[in-house]
Amino acid sequence: MTNQRYQRLVWLTGHLTTHPDQQLSLTELSRKFGVAKSTLSDDLLMVKTAMDETRLGTVDTQVGSQGGVVFSPQLDGEAVEKTLEFWLHALSEPDRRTPEGFLYMTDLLFDPKRIDPLGQLLAENFRHMAVDGVATVETKGIPLAMATAERLGVGVMLLRRDSRLSDGSALSLNYLSGSSHRIQSMSLSRRMPARGARLIFVDDFMKAGGTARAAQDLLTEFDARVIGVGVLISTREPEHKLIEDYVACLQWNESEKSGPPLQVSGWVNELVRRSHLGFGGGPGGT
Amino acid sequence: MTNQRYQRLVWLTGHLTTHPDQQLSLTELSRKFGVAKSTLSDDLLMVKTAMDETRLGTVDTQVGSQGGVVFSPQLDGEAVEKTLEFWLHALSEPDRRTPEGFLYMTDLLFDPKRIDPLGQLLAENFRHMAVDGVATVETKGIPLAMATAERLGVGVMLLRRDSRLSDGSALSLNYLSGSSHRIQSMSLSRRMPARGARLIFVDDFMKAGGTARAAQDLLTEFDARVIGVGVLISTREPEHKLIEDYVACLQWNESEKSGPPLQVSGWVNELVRRSHLGFGGGPGGT
Repeated sequence: MTNQRYQRLVWLTGHLTTHPDQQLSLTELSRKFGVAKSTLSDDLLMVKTAMDETRLGTVDTQVGSQGGVVFSPQLDGEAVEKTLEFWLHALSEPDRRTPEGFLYMTDLLFDPKRIDPLGQLLAENFRHMAVDGVATVETKGIPLAMATAERLGVGVMLLRRDSRLSDGSALSLNYLSGSSHRIQSMSLSRRMPARGARLIFVDDFMKAGGTARAAQDLLTEFDARVIGVGVLISTREPEHKLIEDYVACLQWNESEKSGPPLQVSGWVNELVRRSHLGFGGGPGGT
Repeated sequence: MTNQRYQRLVWLTGHLTTHPDQQLSLTELSRKFGVAKSTLSDDLLMVKTAMDETRLGTVDTQVGSQGGVVFSPQLDGEAVEKTLEFWLHALSEPDRRTPEGFLYMTDLLFDPKRIDPLGQLLAENFRHMAVDGVATVETKGIPLAMATAERLGVGVMLLRRDSRLSDGSALSLNYLSGSSHRIQSMSLSRRMPARGARLIFVDDFMKAGGTARAAQDLLTEFDARVIGVGVLISTREPEHKLIEDYVACLQWNESEKSGPPLQVSGWVNELVRRSHLGFGGGPGGT
């Protein structure tokens, strides 16, 4: 292998991993390297094989004049596991409980290294559903929604608590919060390109599911459909939520009478287990 | 070069680029690959050289028993340029102006591919300042703040518009908005670990600078220091803002009487120019 080839392999790998889920033009890449497309194809095959072996992700190449290459990252199960262990540990500290019985976690929700792996996890769960966008209600679910959207290659549709002057005209909905029984409201700017979109709703916390349900109702007014709901934490009680289908990374048993207060959900363990399958811990591993 | 070596190069490159600015243990990496540290060091030197040549970023290795390796990505000047061109074009469309004269841009602010490169840009500008965290006020500046924080390897300190039950006790500040002359308020939970922190304040929009100034004042109450301010767009008028030092990616000339309505700031062009220096467009380029 020549020096130039290994340099191209490093550059190609770096370029693909930092442009996940984007269609990269073969013509442009071969121009950048000053090599023929056939040479580039050989390089890409080597990168693809090595990425398969080491479970970094998959490389799909379409040949032809409009040919391109797309890198789809594999879920980093190790990062997800470490992150969830961190959350379980952090949230079990007594000073995380406010006198009113809430869990204080704003500092953690807004730390990219604590939230990005969980966005990858939610994205992995919804990847097959042809998602057009991620909806969330301000404010604390925003980082998780952004992390999920980034990994799915889509944008976030922000539902506001109040409509703002800078949003122009907006459609608003008042609803009864399922847990606190207070009247709350949310609104969506008419300028938001929601028509016909297939959306997943992402939030930090779910108790009765009233907010998720209201978001679903409001988005229906825009002819958008909520095809999935994902949250960081859901409470075990009430068992029957106001929405039917949702996934939570962690489950919180508020009463703490039986079992541990916080648990990782079964679907998470399954996705993490699958991401480890066949991964010998790198190409030289056994 | 053996098959195993090129597989390790691909895996190492992919692992480094997807764990930017993190200290990775040499011991753990050599265990993962099942190779001696000396072999791993040779691999890393090849990756480092190729990354230097192609300006993907820098690889720093510390040898010894506590030895580790850190990858610091280089600013992707091409992505920044393309993103800013997109913003200039999108914001000049007439239907972005609300009847009240605001720019509607919530949909763009919450699209990761439109905002992440600008977070990388702000991070590059503040990288040398030993930043402990990024502060922002809800809501529209959050994605840019998260993108900047991610690239700096720190968390975001969220200032709320109202204090919430789930935040526990909080310190609040009322202030006069510099542009609209309305009373506004912001608050920070006492649980937020701000004491002694060196922060940069990031927001989407700045007119008179009243919000940035109030954030600075509130954070001072926590013994935290705002050592820099970065926004996506600042207005040309008023020329004298309520804070002295700030950087804006784009400048908006609201009056539009002289010159173009939106312009890329000089410091941005300088950082982008530097990122292109010596980059022949890939290892095979001229």
